Amino acid sequence: MSAVPADSDDRRYTLALGCPDRPGIIARITSFIAEFGGSIVEAGYHSDPESGWFFTRQALAAATVPFGLDELRVRFAAVAREFGPQTEWQLLDSAVRRRAVLLVSRDGHCLHDLLGRAVSGELPATIEAVIGNHPDLAAMTEAHGVKFHHVPFPKDPAERGPAFAQVRELVDAHEPDAVVLARFMQVLPAELCAHWAGRAINIHHSFLPSFVGARPYHQAFARGVKLIGATCHYVTAELDAGPIIEQDVIRIDHGDTVRDMVRQGRDIERVVLARGLRWHLEGRVLVHGRRTVVFS
Amino acid sequence: MSAVPADSDDRRYTLALGCPDRPGIIARITSFIAEFGGSIVEAGYHSDPESGWFFTRQALAAATVPFGLDELRVRFAAVAREFGPQTEWQLLDSAVRRRAVLLVSRDGHCLHDLLGRAVSGELPATIEAVIGNHPDLAAMTEAHGVKFHHVPFPKDPAERGPAFAQVRELVDAHEPDAVVLARFMQVLPAELCAHWAGRAINIHHSFLPSFVGARPYHQAFARGVKLIGATCHYVTAELDAGPIIEQDVIRIDHGDTVRDMVRQGRDIERVVLARGLRWHLEGRVLVHGRRTVVFS
Amino acid sequence: MSAVPADSDDRRYTLALGCPDRPGIIARITSFIAEFGGSIVEAGYHSDPESGWFFTRQALAAATVPFGLDELRVRFAAVAREFGPQTEWQLLDSAVRRRAVLLVSRDGHCLHDLLGRAVSGELPATIEAVIGNHPDLAAMTEAHGVKFHHVPFPKDPAERGPAFAQVRELVDAHEPDAVVLARFMQVLPAELCAHWAGRAINIHHSFLPSFVGARPYHQAFARGVKLIGATCHYVTAELDAGPIIEQDVIRIDHGDTVRDMVRQGRDIERVVLARGLRWHLEGRVLVHGRRTVVFS
Amino acid sequence: MSAVPADSDDRRYTLALGCPDRPGIIARITSFIAEFGGSIVEAGYHSDPESGWFFTRQALAAATVPFGLDELRVRFAAVAREFGPQTEWQLLDSAVRRRAVLLVSRDGHCLHDLLGRAVSGELPATIEAVIGNHPDLAAMTEAHGVKFHHVPFPKDPAERGPAFAQVRELVDAHEPDAVVLARFMQVLPAELCAHWAGRAINIHHSFLPSFVGARPYHQAFARGVKLIGATCHYVTAELDAGPIIEQDVIRIDHGDTVRDMVRQGRDIERVVLARGLRWHLEGRVLVHGRRTVVFS
Repeated sequence: MSAVPADSDDRRYTLALGCPDRPGIIARITSFIAEFGGSIVEAGYHSDPESGWFFTRQALAAATVPFGLDELRVRFAAVAREFGPQTEWQLLDSAVRRRAVLLVSRDGHCLHDLLGRAVSGELPATIEAVIGNHPDLAAMTEAHGVKFHHVPFPKDPAERGPAFAQVRELVDAHEPDAVVLARFMQVLPAELCAHWAGRAINIHHSFLPSFVGARPYHQAFARGVKLIGATCHYVTAELDAGPIIEQDVIRIDHGDTVRDMVRQGRDIERVVLARGLRWHLEGRVLVHGRRTVVFS
Repeated sequence: MSAVPADSDDRRYTLALGCPDRPGIIARITSFIAEFGGSIVEAGYHSDPESGWFFTRQALAAATVPFGLDELRVRFAAVAREFGPQTEWQLLDSAVRRRAVLLVSRDGHCLHDLLGRAVSGELPATIEAVIGNHPDLAAMTEAHGVKFHHVPFPKDPAERGPAFAQVRELVDAHEPDAVVLARFMQVLPAELCAHWAGRAINIHHSFLPSFVGARPYHQAFARGVKLIGATCHYVTAELDAGPIIEQDVIRIDHGDTVRDMVRQGRDIERVVLARGLRWHLEGRVLVHGRRTVVFS
Repeated sequence: MSAVPADSDDRRYTLALGCPDRPGIIARITSFIAEFGGSIVEAGYHSDPESGWFFTRQALAAATVPFGLDELRVRFAAVAREFGPQTEWQLLDSAVRRRAVLLVSRDGHCLHDLLGRAVSGELPATIEAVIGNHPDLAAMTEAHGVKFHHVPFPKDPAERGPAFAQVRELVDAHEPDAVVLARFMQVLPAELCAHWAGRAINIHHSFLPSFVGARPYHQAFARGVKLIGATCHYVTAELDAGPIIEQDVIRIDHGDTVRDMVRQGRDIERVVLARGLRWHLEGRVLVHGRRTVVFS
Repeated sequence: MSAVPADSDDRRYTLALGCPDRPGIIARITSFIAEFGGSIVEAGYHSDPESGWFFTRQALAAATVPFGLDELRVRFAAVAREFGPQTEWQLLDSAVRRRAVLLVSRDGHCLHDLLGRAVSGELPATIEAVIGNHPDLAAMTEAHGVKFHHVPFPKDPAERGPAFAQVRELVDAHEPDAVVLARFMQVLPAELCAHWAGRAINIHHSFLPSFVGARPYHQAFARGVKLIGATCHYVTAELDAGPIIEQDVIRIDHGDTVRDMVRQGRDIERVVLARGLRWHLEGRVLVHGRRTVVFS
């Protein structure tokens, strides 16, 4: 589906909404849009019979909206109220560049890939800063014109509180729309998971729920699986158990050592993270409980 | 997405529509449905900026429609007229079993697969008859309780007119919703393509547009490709050039002979045909020019 | 890679061997073959640095072996002895049709698929018998000319001993090379796992090690994964934990219900089981500990 | 399979050989290796019944070879002569870093990806230089510490001779093992194809042989295919028709515009080029006629 628009003619206002399902919601929303002559350029709808929830994402050509985004927000709020107090929605403006902050450790392949996508305009966000618990990736980051912060982490997990506090402060200073754990290798404390809920995105190098935690390629080798995978998910307090945004796999065989898996796995990690992050930034991902609806 | 309903509570009326795009169509259709309290259980929308065409498919819970299908058709016809004379639409009732006729030759893997899916209720249609230009697959067909007709084809293509006429008559007697060329290996004459337009579905054993025509696996071997594929498409007068419904591929390597490709290719042929045929039968495929919109 | 030969010119003797690794094994084996002028038509070698084990599979054109298979076995045994007492090997003759027995329950898609492959000559084995703990699949089996045995299983797992004893007797009467649990849905007792070790093959409808045990599609739905899979593995006493022969996955999305997953999952279950079973029957699978080497 | 070794213990001598097939070749080569106690850490063999050709690739642990590489070459040359005058072979030393030169235009995604892989040690070669017919990618290249040359190309194809001559000179100065057309967008003259035969590698943004030439994503959109692909192949005088090293595809749907295809296609282009290039550099690709044998 469409990436971020290249020019102002392509400017879009994008509505994403989830609420308890009942007949007439689509008619109500689309009639609201039709009343002011709005043109819907992309529309996704989903009713989940299991949870009884309704989800929609609609992209409007901004040029067909005869008033500003603030006014659109005010007007739509009245419509959304009709759908009940559990309704959640947001309206994004493609002309407002979104912001991402990246957390990294020593492995640079996901970082390098995202920096390249940002340069080429493929990532619908600016990378505001990169924070590493090791200094190794400073040069790569700065060569792409992005600020790098080194926050050393003590060996003893019990003493990492101040380091996490510093990371939190550095991240929050940018008011990011996405906090990306690009192979960060540190488990976020529960209070940070809560603080960045719905914005912290992790790439795990296995096909979850297989091989949770450390060294998933070693686990995969020991189990003798024939495919290895990567999972992009929202971070929650339970390790590697947050709502899944995207997954993919690659075929391996008996000739592949753990080192081979690590190398080949990088190619899926990169792509799965980039895809999941883009969907998040474009308002394509709606979370309900432990599941996601992705209007890709 | 959802297969054919298992019981009457799941009965659905499914609308599929294509028309010139303009603002307000979704609102008009969904308001029409909301007015009588209809519940939309599945909805797909697509605006094609290239062709300026709009496509939608909507499945209604039949139990929420307070009148019969005929009345629904009459009422919706008035709505559709507002969208202009080029508008095309159909309304399907999941309680009316759809009908398929299969044309085969000697290779039985696609036939056997479809017969099995029909038995298990996985195919949303009954297989009314199987017609073969060779008698080889009669026993397999009849073991599944389906009538087999053998129509011999003369060697000389110029003399095949009467055979095709007989096939046409046998097929048309069943008024089928799908005429499936399940590895039929005979090129349909243009007039039959026209007669069954939008209903004749072929499985070609290559990833089209590569390797049109005869012996695609031999062509693939000679070219040294690293993936082989299968394509399910509507039949048109131009050979293997009709609108594509579904495609898939499988990885091969230098160790695979043509015979190996034939064997492995069967697995994708079966699945690609079954998938494309199901989508066609469920009204998920809308054709515009040489392209399809598939609300899968 | 090559399926079972179609005619006697294609007759092959296939050697599969595993032993502790050390330099010179390939030279020893291939020199042994070269001495009598044997022609190797397919060769696979693998050294596993982790386990220090060596694996090979070699297919000889039978016509180039100037003596019988028994003589070849006697001669090769002397070579194998040089590689130490842990060496395991077998020699298969493609002219000796291999035998499979299938265990089923109510779901017929894997059974129907294997019956079809047997008919078309795609499966390098005869299906000697099908045994079901329900009678549902008797007609389908017999329509393909295969004997069906119904062995009812009591509800109480504690009382299933006699039923398993009867299954064992029925199976063993055919001295099968493969005992295929084609969606059998019953957990084999440990002593049967041991008795059929290396011959009992299961298809599990998830991408193991995710979703072990019952109702894996329900588990997958609840977890919100974006791909579902199937795994073909040898049966061992630990549930769904035996050496994996083959796996594959298919993409799903938020619109897919559990019922949709069940339907789509069938397509991978069929293919993964058929592929894994063929490899087993052709002597392409060598097991070492919990891992397999597959010379596909 | 294994990437380039990380340390000297992993040093390997890799033999790649193609010759007319006949019994005893494997025995001859492996006996030659066994005689001096060489340890084979990776072995691939292939007999092609179609062409009657034999191919092998064998990686020796250098530490187990009791003499130098030059001596090994001399000794093996005598063995290779026994296989006839058409025999082609090479012996690579993993301790000798291989060299690549990249030709680019304006699209930087493949370049950025390869530069990142070179930095992380994932590419078994140094990127010696990058040559662009536009200056756009100079900054990206130099930020990775690699020299960039801008060689402007005149609009008129008939006048490009001097530009190609300059490119040739710049490339040849580095005696590269690979000349990579990383979305170069210029058709090499036949004499350059001949000059760099077996070393010039192109990434084409379609699943060849579909959509040869310019604007393949536009062609794919017009044809309505359901998968788009990328092909890594050796460059020959016939456009996009050289021996294929690697291919892959990605699923698209009716909602994807040409711009969406361009964006998604980049992810396969990157991976397919990186994979094919690595296999080439590690001596895993043997060409025979229009087909390749890839011991991946």
